[in-house]
Parts: sequence; C-alpha cells; structure tokens
Amino acid sequence: MNQKRDTKMPATIEWLEGGTVRLIDQTQLPQTLVFEDCTTHEHIADAIRPLKIRGAPAIGCAAAFGMALCAYHSRANTADALLAELEKARECLAATRPTAVNLFWALERVMAVAQKAAESGDVAHVVQAVVAEAKEITEDDYARCVAMGDHGAELIPEGTNVLTHCNAGALATAGYGTALGVIRSAHLQGKKIHVWVDETRPLLQGARLTAWEMAQEGIPATLICDNTAASLMAQGKIGCAVVGADRIAANGDVANKIGTYGVAALCDMHGIPFYVAAPISTVDYSLSSGAEIPIEQRSPEEVTHLGLQTDESVAAAGVEIYNAAFDVTPARLVAAIITDRGVARPPYEEGLAALRE
Amino acid sequence: MNQKRDTKMPATIEWLEGGTVRLIDQTQLPQTLVFEDCTTHEHIADAIRPLKIRGAPAIGCAAAFGMALCAYHSRANTADALLAELEKARECLAATRPTAVNLFWALERVMAVAQKAAESGDVAHVVQAVVAEAKEITEDDYARCVAMGDHGAELIPEGTNVLTHCNAGALATAGYGTALGVIRSAHLQGKKIHVWVDETRPLLQGARLTAWEMAQEGIPATLICDNTAASLMAQGKIGCAVVGADRIAANGDVANKIGTYGVAALCDMHGIPFYVAAPISTVDYSLSSGAEIPIEQRSPEEVTHLGLQTDESVAAAGVEIYNAAFDVTPARLVAAIITDRGVARPPYEEGLAALRE
Repeated sequence: MNQKRDTKMPATIEWLEGGTVRLIDQTQLPQTLVFEDCTTHEHIADAIRPLKIRGAPAIGCAAAFGMALCAYHSRANTADALLAELEKARECLAATRPTAVNLFWALERVMAVAQKAAESGDVAHVVQAVVAEAKEITEDDYARCVAMGDHGAELIPEGTNVLTHCNAGALATAGYGTALGVIRSAHLQGKKIHVWVDETRPLLQGARLTAWEMAQEGIPATLICDNTAASLMAQGKIGCAVVGADRIAANGDVANKIGTYGVAALCDMHGIPFYVAAPISTVDYSLSSGAEIPIEQRSPEEVTHLGLQTDESVAAAGVEIYNAAFDVTPARLVAAIITDRGVARPPYEEGLAALRE
Repeated sequence: MNQKRDTKMPATIEWLEGGTVRLIDQTQLPQTLVFEDCTTHEHIADAIRPLKIRGAPAIGCAAAFGMALCAYHSRANTADALLAELEKARECLAATRPTAVNLFWALERVMAVAQKAAESGDVAHVVQAVVAEAKEITEDDYARCVAMGDHGAELIPEGTNVLTHCNAGALATAGYGTALGVIRSAHLQGKKIHVWVDETRPLLQGARLTAWEMAQEGIPATLICDNTAASLMAQGKIGCAVVGADRIAANGDVANKIGTYGVAALCDMHGIPFYVAAPISTVDYSLSSGAEIPIEQRSPEEVTHLGLQTDESVAAAGVEIYNAAFDVTPARLVAAIITDRGVARPPYEEGLAALRE
C-alpha cells in the first residue's frame, strides 16, 4: 500500500531502530528544520500538546508511536502487566487534545492489537505486534493521503485558484497531506494551479507550514491574512476551497481549525465549491452531528503573543481573550468530502456510510 | 459645537501654541503612550504613512494641521507665495494614503479658506485663517463623533454583544470615535453591552487600539482573531456589528479596513444587522459606486512580520504576499449608515443625498 510520491518533504514522524521516534518540531518551522527524538510516550504527549506535531492524522500516528514506545521500553514480565502499562499510556496520550478523533481511533486500534496479542501470554509478541501496528498506521496514512489526493484532484479545474486554511499538508499527516495532498496531486498532474494560503491565526500554520510546503514543492502560492479571503472571493479570484478536518460527524458536519466555518459560509455565499479532505479515520460515526464534537479552548497567549512569536503581549493589557481552536462547519456548506476511499457527496449520512468499512 | 464627553482618552492630535502639532504615536500603543511633536507638514506626512496617526477622520485632521504648520512657519512675503507653498504641502500630504477621502476633503477645505483669505493680499491673514480652519476641522470632528455616537446608540439594544473590526475609535478621530463613539454612547446611556474586538490583521488595530480604548473606558470587551467571528455568529453570540469607514460612495458602498466585507457578508448570512458609522465628510458624493474607490496596497512585511511586531519574518521564505489595506462592502449588506447628521437607511442614494449639505 506504500505508494511513495516524489515530494521534497522530510518524514513528519518515523520509527528508528532501537526504539526512538523522530518527529519534526513544527513550532520551529519555517525558520529551522529541527527533529526531536522521543523514547517515551510522555515525551510524545509533551510534543502533541504544544503542537510540535499537529494535524489530525499526524496526531493519530504520534499516539500510535507513543504506545509503541511504551511497549518497546517496558520492563513488564507478563502480557497482562504490559497491557496495564499500555492502558496508562493510552490515558496519558488521550488527554492531550480533545477534538481530533484520529487520536482516539489510533489508540483504540493499537490497544485492540495488544489485547489480541496478549492472548498468547507472550510479552515479546505483544511488543512486536504493537510496534508493527504503529508502523502500519503511519504507512497506511501516507498511502491514504496519496489515494485521497488523486481522488480529490479530479475536482480541481485546470488553472484554478485554490484557497486553503491552516495546514492540512504533509506535516499534518504521515506525509503528502489531505487538503494539500489534493493540491499536490493536481500539481503533479500538470494542472497549473495557484494556492491562496490563509495565514491561520492564532498559530499561523498557514504562513509557517503551508507556505513552506508550497515553496518546497514549487507550487505557486500567495499568503493572505485570514480576513482577506472574502474580498478575493468577491473579486472572482478564488475558484474553490480545500481544507482538512479534525473530526467529521456521521451527517457530514466538519470540525476543523477555527476560521474554517467562515471560509465555508463565504464560499457558499459566493457560489464557490468548498471541499473537505480527510481519511475515513477522521469520520466519527458515533456522532450524529457536529454539535456533539468537543471543541478545544487554548491559551490566551496564542492570541496576545501572536502565535507565541513575540515575547510580550501586543494586545492591550487586561483584555479578555476567546481562543477556540476549532469550529464546526455544517454539512450543507460542504460540496464534497474527499476520502481515501473516494469522494462522498450529500446527503452525507448515506455517502459516508457507504464508504465505511 | 464642542460638546466634550468624559472619556479617559488623551487627545489624538492637537495644536499647541507656537506652531507645534502633538499627536499620539499609535504604533507604540498599547505598550507605551508616546506623543510626537511635529512642526512641518513633511513630518505630518511621515506620521501618516506608517500609521502613527490613522483612521479616516484623524487623517483628515492631521492633513489640515499639516497645512496649518506649513502656513504658520512659512517665510513667504506675499499671499500668492504662501498659496504656492500651501499647494506643495497639499500635494505632499495628499500622496500619503489613497483610500480615506477625509484626507482630500480636509485639504480642499483648508485650501479653499486659504484662497479666500489670500484675496486680501495679507499673508498674516492667510496664516491665521488656515490655522483657524485646521483647528475647527478637528473640533468639529469631535462634536460630529459625539452626535454620531448618540444617533447610533439608538440602534444598539440593551445587553447586546457588539462586534467591531479595526479601530474606529477616539484614536481614529479627533476623539470619541465613530463606531466606538456609538459604543461609548450606548455604554454611557447605561446599556450593558459587551464588545467583541476583531484583532484586525495585519496591523492589529483591534488588539492594540480598540482593546486599549475599551479598557480605558471600562467597557467589557473580548479580543478574538478575525477568523473567529463567524463561529460566534453561528453560536448566536453577536447581536450586531458596527464599523467605521474610509470612504463611502454615493450609493452606500463602503471602503473600510480589509476584513470588513467578510464581516458584513457573514452578518447578512446570519441575519445580524451590520452598521457603518462615519461623519458625512467620509461620503464621496462624486463616486457612484465603491468600484471607483482606490484601494491601497501595503508592504508584505506587515503580514510576514505580524504587524511589524517581530524582527524576522514568521512566514516561509519566498512566499508571495497580497496585502490590500481595504475592501469594499456593497451597500446591500449595510443595514444603516450612522452619520453626524442622522441615520441613513437604504436606498442610500436617497438617504445619503438627503443628509448632504
């Protein structure tokens, strides 16, 4: 399934022999490309919380590797003792961020494999199975992104201007990206596209990460402040929008980076198709609508210190801050959901159910 | 006409005896309150360009005072020689920023007074007339803001949440503000309102200036990233929006800070009234629609260096930047235009014409 594409991107996260997980510290980008080596699940959790690694699919990979590190370095003598340690690691990793469902999906998947392997009573077998599963989740994620990109590229017209918000790129996945995977595939197919990159306040993932990925790939891109997209739409300069997702409810409601709902609503008003690209693991079939998706609130300093890029607050002292990390876009504003298994169209209850395993 | 209100704000700009104009250097706010003393029109122009003084009405006052400085310190021996110097000063000041019409309006008004006074052939009389006119433009502006605030406050319901974008406050005028004048009047009337403050990228006038004004006045306010307002609208947490204007066409189309159009469009979609507050001097009756309003493009560094708050770019190297300072909101999205002479309602061709002198 590991269908590698020639991208200029280093691995977002990978397993090194000897029980080390190496990930790109994305808070240092685009100024410096720094890798961080982790050997414990706590270290992985500490990397997820401040967004050293972020993006729903990449968080899933990181969580799976966190479980793998726990198993690999465990001194447990019995399979049951190891399962107990893995359960604690799962709790630690699950508490890092609430919105991206891939985190919980990956943890469940690894735990299920561990429990099955533990039936043998062989500790080494559990360790091997857990590490193999984490590697497979990550390799799968890359392949799913490529499949998604190729499905989605069919929706991107030749010569169009594509708006994207936040970073749903190689850095948000095991590689290649979801929304940026669609853009990469369209570009590789020779379609002469141009990308409008929303800077994406507060943490500036668009300016720092998406603009960097576009530069690495040589895909023409222009950076804008988030509040500028509406004016470009009114001028007819945006042909479509493609974003990623942190969780999709069974009815097609989409939780994604704050500002996504505004983009979708403005697209609707201007008759511009708004697409969401996400692996099927981002769909939470247990939720009937987006109203049930928990929305993470983050620290005021991300706003007042400009994505933590300034040492002092630029905002007036004492002002209150509202900093929700995500918003929910209702399914009616979404023209299509692009998955690794194909493109779902409304009504999404049916379209997404048909793509379910 | 000088109806002072008890606000906690220092004068945005004022004439000091001896031929000095003192203005707040707004690029230093909110960290430090620094005054800059100007004695030449070139110095005033140098303050307008980097937004040390900004906001359409305040730019008008600054331009008028720039003309007054030119006249006051002139060594011209004849009225005609002084007129020639004033003409050069006008050209210099008019070239600072293209969008706010109050700049050109104020320069015309001062030049007309100078030309009339020059008929006497008395240089001292021209000087006196020009300085008096500049002072009057500024005193008028304050009084107009108070009138506008009181007219507009009637549109603000008790206990509502008001969204505002950029800074249309005391700092954007001779004092009291346009949009924030409406908010000040509603607050002074005892209406328990709360203000959502868009941070307003790229230059962060909301985070730096509007949040500061709200803190000075003790008006409850919460700062948000620009991309967050849409989600608050969907949650029913915004009752109305009030913004200022840099130029209004005769048909009611409004040029204002980039992002205003997005706010207006989203308000329309959510059934939220969107109001514009501006003195009648902001209406450019010579333009039949907003399509004719020149839109200023500003430097990429305002985006990449986060409103010039960082020493280095936070954006990926080499990415293109689009940084239009303003956008145009079509009149159909504007529920009312609040002026110093009363509130205009659609159709604005008639409503605004009726308020014309």
